[in-house]
Amino acid sequence: MPSNLCNDFQFMGMDSSFEDSDIVVFGAPFDGTTSFRPGTRFASKAMRPEFIGLETYSPKLQLDLVDCRVHDGGEMYFPLGDVQTVLNTIETTVSEIVQAGKKPCMIGGEHLVTLPAVKAVLQAHPNAYIFHFDAHTDLRDELDGAYFSHATVIRRIHDIVGDERIFQFGIRSGMKSEFDFALQDQHTYMEPFQVTTVAQQLEKLAGEKVYITIDLDILDPSIFPGTGTPEAGGITYRELESVFTAFQAADVELVGADLVELSPDYDHSGVSTAVANKVLREIILLLNKKANLT
Amino acid sequence: MPSNLCNDFQFMGMDSSFEDSDIVVFGAPFDGTTSFRPGTRFASKAMRPEFIGLETYSPKLQLDLVDCRVHDGGEMYFPLGDVQTVLNTIETTVSEIVQAGKKPCMIGGEHLVTLPAVKAVLQAHPNAYIFHFDAHTDLRDELDGAYFSHATVIRRIHDIVGDERIFQFGIRSGMKSEFDFALQDQHTYMEPFQVTTVAQQLEKLAGEKVYITIDLDILDPSIFPGTGTPEAGGITYRELESVFTAFQAADVELVGADLVELSPDYDHSGVSTAVANKVLREIILLLNKKANLT
Amino acid sequence: MPSNLCNDFQFMGMDSSFEDSDIVVFGAPFDGTTSFRPGTRFASKAMRPEFIGLETYSPKLQLDLVDCRVHDGGEMYFPLGDVQTVLNTIETTVSEIVQAGKKPCMIGGEHLVTLPAVKAVLQAHPNAYIFHFDAHTDLRDELDGAYFSHATVIRRIHDIVGDERIFQFGIRSGMKSEFDFALQDQHTYMEPFQVTTVAQQLEKLAGEKVYITIDLDILDPSIFPGTGTPEAGGITYRELESVFTAFQAADVELVGADLVELSPDYDHSGVSTAVANKVLREIILLLNKKANLT
Amino acid sequence: MPSNLCNDFQFMGMDSSFEDSDIVVFGAPFDGTTSFRPGTRFASKAMRPEFIGLETYSPKLQLDLVDCRVHDGGEMYFPLGDVQTVLNTIETTVSEIVQAGKKPCMIGGEHLVTLPAVKAVLQAHPNAYIFHFDAHTDLRDELDGAYFSHATVIRRIHDIVGDERIFQFGIRSGMKSEFDFALQDQHTYMEPFQVTTVAQQLEKLAGEKVYITIDLDILDPSIFPGTGTPEAGGITYRELESVFTAFQAADVELVGADLVELSPDYDHSGVSTAVANKVLREIILLLNKKANLT
Amino acid sequence: MPSNLCNDFQFMGMDSSFEDSDIVVFGAPFDGTTSFRPGTRFASKAMRPEFIGLETYSPKLQLDLVDCRVHDGGEMYFPLGDVQTVLNTIETTVSEIVQAGKKPCMIGGEHLVTLPAVKAVLQAHPNAYIFHFDAHTDLRDELDGAYFSHATVIRRIHDIVGDERIFQFGIRSGMKSEFDFALQDQHTYMEPFQVTTVAQQLEKLAGEKVYITIDLDILDPSIFPGTGTPEAGGITYRELESVFTAFQAADVELVGADLVELSPDYDHSGVSTAVANKVLREIILLLNKKANLT
Amino acid sequence: MPSNLCNDFQFMGMDSSFEDSDIVVFGAPFDGTTSFRPGTRFASKAMRPEFIGLETYSPKLQLDLVDCRVHDGGEMYFPLGDVQTVLNTIETTVSEIVQAGKKPCMIGGEHLVTLPAVKAVLQAHPNAYIFHFDAHTDLRDELDGAYFSHATVIRRIHDIVGDERIFQFGIRSGMKSEFDFALQDQHTYMEPFQVTTVAQQLEKLAGEKVYITIDLDILDPSIFPGTGTPEAGGITYRELESVFTAFQAADVELVGADLVELSPDYDHSGVSTAVANKVLREIILLLNKKANLT
Repeated sequence: MPSNLCNDFQFMGMDSSFEDSDIVVFGAPFDGTTSFRPGTRFASKAMRPEFIGLETYSPKLQLDLVDCRVHDGGEMYFPLGDVQTVLNTIETTVSEIVQAGKKPCMIGGEHLVTLPAVKAVLQAHPNAYIFHFDAHTDLRDELDGAYFSHATVIRRIHDIVGDERIFQFGIRSGMKSEFDFALQDQHTYMEPFQVTTVAQQLEKLAGEKVYITIDLDILDPSIFPGTGTPEAGGITYRELESVFTAFQAADVELVGADLVELSPDYDHSGVSTAVANKVLREIILLLNKKANLT
Repeated sequence: MPSNLCNDFQFMGMDSSFEDSDIVVFGAPFDGTTSFRPGTRFASKAMRPEFIGLETYSPKLQLDLVDCRVHDGGEMYFPLGDVQTVLNTIETTVSEIVQAGKKPCMIGGEHLVTLPAVKAVLQAHPNAYIFHFDAHTDLRDELDGAYFSHATVIRRIHDIVGDERIFQFGIRSGMKSEFDFALQDQHTYMEPFQVTTVAQQLEKLAGEKVYITIDLDILDPSIFPGTGTPEAGGITYRELESVFTAFQAADVELVGADLVELSPDYDHSGVSTAVANKVLREIILLLNKKANLT
Repeated sequence: MPSNLCNDFQFMGMDSSFEDSDIVVFGAPFDGTTSFRPGTRFASKAMRPEFIGLETYSPKLQLDLVDCRVHDGGEMYFPLGDVQTVLNTIETTVSEIVQAGKKPCMIGGEHLVTLPAVKAVLQAHPNAYIFHFDAHTDLRDELDGAYFSHATVIRRIHDIVGDERIFQFGIRSGMKSEFDFALQDQHTYMEPFQVTTVAQQLEKLAGEKVYITIDLDILDPSIFPGTGTPEAGGITYRELESVFTAFQAADVELVGADLVELSPDYDHSGVSTAVANKVLREIILLLNKKANLT
Repeated sequence: MPSNLCNDFQFMGMDSSFEDSDIVVFGAPFDGTTSFRPGTRFASKAMRPEFIGLETYSPKLQLDLVDCRVHDGGEMYFPLGDVQTVLNTIETTVSEIVQAGKKPCMIGGEHLVTLPAVKAVLQAHPNAYIFHFDAHTDLRDELDGAYFSHATVIRRIHDIVGDERIFQFGIRSGMKSEFDFALQDQHTYMEPFQVTTVAQQLEKLAGEKVYITIDLDILDPSIFPGTGTPEAGGITYRELESVFTAFQAADVELVGADLVELSPDYDHSGVSTAVANKVLREIILLLNKKANLT
Repeated sequence: MPSNLCNDFQFMGMDSSFEDSDIVVFGAPFDGTTSFRPGTRFASKAMRPEFIGLETYSPKLQLDLVDCRVHDGGEMYFPLGDVQTVLNTIETTVSEIVQAGKKPCMIGGEHLVTLPAVKAVLQAHPNAYIFHFDAHTDLRDELDGAYFSHATVIRRIHDIVGDERIFQFGIRSGMKSEFDFALQDQHTYMEPFQVTTVAQQLEKLAGEKVYITIDLDILDPSIFPGTGTPEAGGITYRELESVFTAFQAADVELVGADLVELSPDYDHSGVSTAVANKVLREIILLLNKKANLT
Repeated sequence: MPSNLCNDFQFMGMDSSFEDSDIVVFGAPFDGTTSFRPGTRFASKAMRPEFIGLETYSPKLQLDLVDCRVHDGGEMYFPLGDVQTVLNTIETTVSEIVQAGKKPCMIGGEHLVTLPAVKAVLQAHPNAYIFHFDAHTDLRDELDGAYFSHATVIRRIHDIVGDERIFQFGIRSGMKSEFDFALQDQHTYMEPFQVTTVAQQLEKLAGEKVYITIDLDILDPSIFPGTGTPEAGGITYRELESVFTAFQAADVELVGADLVELSPDYDHSGVSTAVANKVLREIILLLNKKANLT
């Protein structure tokens, strides 16, 4: 082998083997039900080469990625076909990760990819709670006749876990009936517009397990323009950091995570991709902290 | 007619006929006095196809566009010629809308288009107050010899309505003499930089009628880069939402509105256009609320 | 109705009613099988407001759009669901147009939309020939297991019409087996790389009917960057004009047409959209000429 | 003065004083009658800092800018007001340049700026011929009621000079009546689409004086996307070079020149600006050659 | 000289001669040690033509640029070669400015350019304090073997001035060892993430002299995307304004300033350039205030 | 290992091990002497994920990448420091590839990287000829005092190989003295502007070995805008294809190759990156053909 050459294109610092890892990061590049602007299929591929713009150390969490054992599993491959095949493929992969005692950290793709990931995680952790950060309710019962869709994903998860298990934050867009489903009928806990009650809700769940799904469009489009459906009035990155420190302080175990809806073709300046990578770093550090505790 | 085809390209949900409508939305695509970066002539045309990215329901106002009767009047057509012809054309059109008992909601174009719209509204509502949201004072007496200009528009309105009738918010750019005109000589009420006193000022105007003109560059360029003269230090979208809730709570009647200065060619990510559409939705909901009350 | 307002957002000059028209233009905004960069779903919506940048007169063909009776049917609406539903929807619509004695001119979308349009046209004109202009063979028998795909569309049409009915020009990308299918086994007539033999082939078809499908990526990416899979070495716009003049001179009747694969999100300068509109104008003029002859 | 600092922001190599110069380059940043996409007002300002990307030597003409005495006069300043004032301002400036025995080389701006420049040049050289390179005829008698417009500029020049004095090349867009004015009624010499007859026409004008006006949209949008109305089917840069070598070989004296219609906001890659600068260099070399001969 | 022409391309309003000036603005277009995305070499050239988008008056500081005597020295010219030559060139130039009794205001370029500027200023003002605003610590002792680098610049300045002389604000990225150097070992004063303690620290320095260096990436990427290494979680422009008002109120003398790391090629909307220009205006006003006092 | 995951991010189809390979592809991401617009350091990283947009089969050469044994060696890593270290690092790596009996195919970076690669290849093949395709002569003896530079690279190679060994094509920019060095003094063979004599020159070299270096800016900026110094008047992609077929037909052995000067940040549409990848595929096919013959 010639010297001076490096053909490692994985996320910088995520070079543990699958066997030696505690956390497995991978991309789920599916955007097949996106009704408006597509392109989230390119998110994880765009994030990898830019991760080097970050430091491995998080001054906010005072934790360092070099102290984590992370495997970059690369990209999922979806045979062309119907949505159900994609869902099954993701569920199988996440199950294999969970069965091997590792924690999945999935990069979407559109939000529908969360459904099979949650299903797989619930098999191992049937009592896990779902923390959902998003601009949109994602609580429709169907979208133009489609039962499985980016706009119905949390409703489908509610079908599985029922009431009092889903916590939604930052929501600022949806049909009136969706807000009624959450706020009036209390099928989920919902804090619209803001993320100020995360710590308080986590406090009630001491000792419990939590899956976290972050639709990056919860962030204001000023800091995260690179997404299919930008919605003004979102949270700042600092407010999202308050979520991270709330999880760091809380007595819960993160058992899985995903971040979805980066659409790189709308990210001309590269800022959205850099933001997604920083969120990824913090999420891994939070997944790892709990790994050490248990 | 073949099935499965739809050739309605108006703003989604604004499909009332002129006769059946309470509110008339239209574009005034004029940018002829723009001294720096032109392009606001394309604003309304860029907004229409993107409006579908929004929901019709506003969780902040808890009102729904489906409950409004709105007519999309399309675009004004300006014969080429001098500025005065454009001003006359706008004044005529707005007068026809107001005379028919409907409320005008105009999309600029540069800010000068507000002058003839206000003149037409004042014919029907001679005591109406002007609420002006902007980064710039627009209080010059002339700009390079031009009496009618985007930089003189509020001064021209002051020529008509006089003192104590104009309320300016969010202003953060202008000549010293313009700030003196407002702050020292009190020809207008001006809150520079912020919009914290809107509710308090509206309280004094109980029972009155108000015309609202929003130069979208009042927003910080982080959330609204797509404008000719971006000026840092602006308000956040949430602060603009506080203006909307102040109007919702206030005992005033909105009798007309405009939003100006979106310049789509500088809006590479589409976020500015999405913001303009969300502001348009909230403004229509506010125009409609009062329509129901009176 | 107030004066000075215009809410006609159809293609400029295509304002005949369906009943009064000879030609019906419409968009088929489907990109569901696109395997690389999506976005052709936005093509027709992006083209309409830019059509005004063109003159109605074609100096090359010396024909004028004002002499044609064209109906802009708007956009097709696809209920979410599987590919088969989309194909059926398009076939139904095109059938209705053809049955009404009008000629369809469809704007994709990805190339798969051509399959149902051709099927519908063949019902009325069972002996029609297919002229296919493209960078890619589109002759795969399947793509990753998918039988109906942008990469298999011409193969599916060959399944229907058989040998000696399909003429392919400008092809410069494909698997070896696809080129063998065409060049060696002569299932289609194929001129790779160039369009120099169009006139000669048309000469053999005197008195016949022809359907023309133009994948705009036949053009070199220098003049048409706004497409999902740009492939260098394509034809110039002038070479495409030689195709138009060949059709103008030929004794064949155009019975339908489509142009596909404009992807506006990759068309930062707007040039690709302007090119697509110019091609649309010339195609309509060619469809119209034959309408007058028969 | 501190060392190591340079505050010369003129075109590289055009540093003669006005008095010592043979050629005066300047910008005429006016786009007030542009009916579609504005922005040519920024052309000359965008060109200056990029000129350094070129060499001073032209291998095609085998001439070097270092052998020319060129003054960069900077930018014209237009007081806000009507079009007539702008036209008068340009005419005055060009007259001053011509009266001082120098040759004007003007950078637009929209094409209307050519009218006053030609008028000023004709005062000194009343028999000069006009060579017009463009995608558009610019022969309308009026545009939406406007007599002076980018679309009427050559017609206005014809009003002054009459038949047999204007030579048009590369034209590929216009109304039928405009082409008839030129081709049928022979009010001008017009070679549509191409520039193959330039040398032949110049041959007939041996010993004569010529003013050259280049609307850069004569170039195909593939090489020149940065313009307001891109029109496919234009000439290549090499074909434009054949125009330059034709002028170099011809026995005519260039007495003035302009290049117009670069619109930098649509030139994302910077290629159009680089092309405009290269054209500027060649034009100056051609202006200079004749200066030496007379 | 022809009338109506203006060839002054300096920053608007900075037209004092070097001799008559109090403040000298100049560009230091060096990005040779940039390890990730280069391009800051173009910052000052991009800022000049856009400065006209600003007013000369600052409503926040209530000061006007027309009351300052500023010389635009243009751009530094760096002979190609090693980094040391660049550093020496800058140090020489800044020394000449300082020796002439004027205050330097330098526009980078990457952050390394601050080192020689500070060295030159310290020669005249050996007790000056360094106020450093940045997203990054810049406290590495070396970067990939390089002792002089954008990532080591503040460490190199610490080598010169020692402890208790450097004040760092807004820092949110770095290696753990860098934060330890500052926060634990207190070699510098560091307020991470925020700028809330600026006024308090300045209060302790009454009567002292201060050099201010602003890495514009201290701003959140939402308002300043145009930089090589965008780092989410930064300060808002209003928070930066609080720094300006703190300096205005403080009893310290600003003896020099720089602003670095604008990278225009990543500033598609132009907002970052507009922000940099506004910061430049405020910094000049602050430099000038103290000039009047002493 | 979980199924359905793929973490191979190398160039599609270049998955031979180093030992099993005939050809080694690698990136040399250096742009340290670029005097105008930098960014070629990102070229190879941008090309890898886009290579999948191509087919493995070349219809022009009728060869298929699946029949080649290619190793993607990844990226070179350059310790920060002076230019000489970079040159040494490249020379070492290429020597190791050549000594192992494989052929190097290097992706720049700026053109200076060719110098050490050629030196390493000449050690094994001392009589090899250099075929140089470029817009620029690259024959300066120094650039602003720099002996090793992108503008001097071919001159430095001439220093080594002497007269009659370097063949230059497509050159259209340089100083007069550079053209004189080549055309008048015949130190190299140079065909300016065109590539029409490649086959004829290769014919004279029957049985010889050739190294090919392609500065992609030889292509016209219409098809290749994504480069630091776009120069109008370049060759079309089809003309470059004629070079490939000339090499395919010629009786010479290609012993190494490079392609340089793609700058992805200026390639907004992605077309330049797609072109670079297509050139890479053809070059590998040509390198492989000769490997089989010898």
